[in-house]
Amino acid sequence: MTMLDELYPAARLADAAEAANRAGLDALLLTPGADLRYVVGYDAHAMERLTCLAIPAGGDPFLVVPRLELPAAKASPAGRLGLELVPWDETDDPYAVVAGRLGRPGAVGLADRMWAMMVLRFAAALPGARQELASLALGPLRARKSPAEVAALREAGQAIDRVHERVPGWLLAGRTEQEVAADISDAILAEGHGRVDFAIVASGPNGASPHHTASDRVIREGDTVVVDIGGTMPSGYCSDCTRTYVIGQPPDDFAAYYQVLKDAQDAACAAVRPGASAESIDAAAREPITAAGYGPYFVHRTGHGIGLETHEDPYIVAGNTEPLQPGHAFSVEPGIYPGQHGARIEDIVVCTDTGCERLNTVTRELVSVPA
Amino acid sequence: MTMLDELYPAARLADAAEAANRAGLDALLLTPGADLRYVVGYDAHAMERLTCLAIPAGGDPFLVVPRLELPAAKASPAGRLGLELVPWDETDDPYAVVAGRLGRPGAVGLADRMWAMMVLRFAAALPGARQELASLALGPLRARKSPAEVAALREAGQAIDRVHERVPGWLLAGRTEQEVAADISDAILAEGHGRVDFAIVASGPNGASPHHTASDRVIREGDTVVVDIGGTMPSGYCSDCTRTYVIGQPPDDFAAYYQVLKDAQDAACAAVRPGASAESIDAAAREPITAAGYGPYFVHRTGHGIGLETHEDPYIVAGNTEPLQPGHAFSVEPGIYPGQHGARIEDIVVCTDTGCERLNTVTRELVSVPA
Repeated sequence: MTMLDELYPAARLADAAEAANRAGLDALLLTPGADLRYVVGYDAHAMERLTCLAIPAGGDPFLVVPRLELPAAKASPAGRLGLELVPWDETDDPYAVVAGRLGRPGAVGLADRMWAMMVLRFAAALPGARQELASLALGPLRARKSPAEVAALREAGQAIDRVHERVPGWLLAGRTEQEVAADISDAILAEGHGRVDFAIVASGPNGASPHHTASDRVIREGDTVVVDIGGTMPSGYCSDCTRTYVIGQPPDDFAAYYQVLKDAQDAACAAVRPGASAESIDAAAREPITAAGYGPYFVHRTGHGIGLETHEDPYIVAGNTEPLQPGHAFSVEPGIYPGQHGARIEDIVVCTDTGCERLNTVTRELVSVPA
Repeated sequence: MTMLDELYPAARLADAAEAANRAGLDALLLTPGADLRYVVGYDAHAMERLTCLAIPAGGDPFLVVPRLELPAAKASPAGRLGLELVPWDETDDPYAVVAGRLGRPGAVGLADRMWAMMVLRFAAALPGARQELASLALGPLRARKSPAEVAALREAGQAIDRVHERVPGWLLAGRTEQEVAADISDAILAEGHGRVDFAIVASGPNGASPHHTASDRVIREGDTVVVDIGGTMPSGYCSDCTRTYVIGQPPDDFAAYYQVLKDAQDAACAAVRPGASAESIDAAAREPITAAGYGPYFVHRTGHGIGLETHEDPYIVAGNTEPLQPGHAFSVEPGIYPGQHGARIEDIVVCTDTGCERLNTVTRELVSVPA
């Protein structure tokens, strides 16, 4: 339980209530997902039957749960918190149960990924309550990772690095992207993840589509291949790492911009320190790419926060003036996508008290797989 | 493309607009998920960047999509529909893009599983629009499966039946539930699914918790084991089938209620026909179980609709007076859970013009695995 207690400390419930109060919310309503897991450690199954942790800003929290899920809720880390569990039966109205206990809140914060069917049911059950997002309260807490959370992200980073180290063994001319992705998916699990989140294998021209997944395209000699992979560890924390490979020798025009890209990724990481704005990291990555004439080919933001979700605050994008703080964890992943091929380099980094720690340490040099 | 055209016919867009109109909605707003896939066949990735198919009740539909996802959207079945694609860039406000094109709708129908962060952004961008659920319009369409959809569900049923046929080979005394679940998960993929949705292996007393998943409990001689498994086929359609097994000879008290359960599941299937209410199927399952004295141990509804989602309309539960129609597809899955052990039998069935077709045909007899 030690690791669990550190990752999901019992004090989170009180912290969340206090954050709700500071955000002007009378209660948080957390359905299954990262917000719920963050506060009490319960990795609940998202389904049409309502599971909802209600956290009044002043008052005792309670977890409304389908009676079928009661054993799972009790067995989860939430079970150790002495939290009141309120089971409901198949023909009960669980929204009325929550509303009846909350009284007349003026404003509630909904889990950011709560389903619309639940949002509208809560709107009807709590007609006087203004609906806001729980992230108003929880966002800043979730974005600043504790040492235990950084350790969990580091563990995830090392696991995905081990997968990248094995990629050259599968990336062979004559195989399809999908075949390679299947091997990678198996390895994501074998290296310690509990779930595969994505296994992007984008070869040749497919590498120029940043969110290409994996197709039946056959990989050929001279292809460059963008491999962007990630999963979720049993801890709940996610990995996400991109490397670009080449089968044999890269095309001449590719080699030229790969070095620009690598320098840009280094420059962005070097800019990470407390107080620097999120958008300044994006600018630091964009500057050398623009200077080298590849600006129009860097078509996405530089990064996204990561933790219990692969994409969360803070987003490293123009317009986000939020200052970085120690514990902020996010991706630094510039890309250049001219069209015939493309490249991206992505590490997860953490803002430390003085600068930047990379959680991915597998080589960022272009790895050539013998053709 | 033939199968695809039948599963996701081009006429769906017009059908959806007409259904919106009938439901009093001026537009449907469909974010990634089953509603979007149903209408245009696009299996879009759910993420924080907005992808939204807007379907005005009168007017031309359009798909707002992050520029990064444009290649995926074009390559999807939606690409063949001549639908207007509206890409947005990283620093644009896609909610304003949707609102600007819609004008001033009085009521919009939101995808039932749209995230709260999007629901609230749309509320702000369309301040005059009452928010309802898209299922007001799409629910009845999605619930009545076309012949092509029934064929896709039948294919899914046959795939999961083949997995059940192999279960006795893995369900050996001395192995843990998790080890068995891992073998089952591999087989769910090997037998043709594109994704594993769940692999419940609940042995001995764990079988009495209907939503137990799989633990490190070691399976022993004399254990009964509830195996409830399902996945999603490449077509998008889901499987879900439960059988109960025993290692060697079952406990005496178990054998008594297993036959009651089997009779109840048969009775419920026999009650399925057009015009019968959803709740009457629940009652038909409950009656023999109650008559035999096991009523208090049947703690959940009898079933749920299934299609592009594992759980969807119609729900087979007391209080749902909706009359069944040809094409309604749902699970019939009574269970008895006395505590020391439990049992459940689940088939997916389709309401036909005259009665019921079972899509799972693997034996419902208690299968004894040699100890």
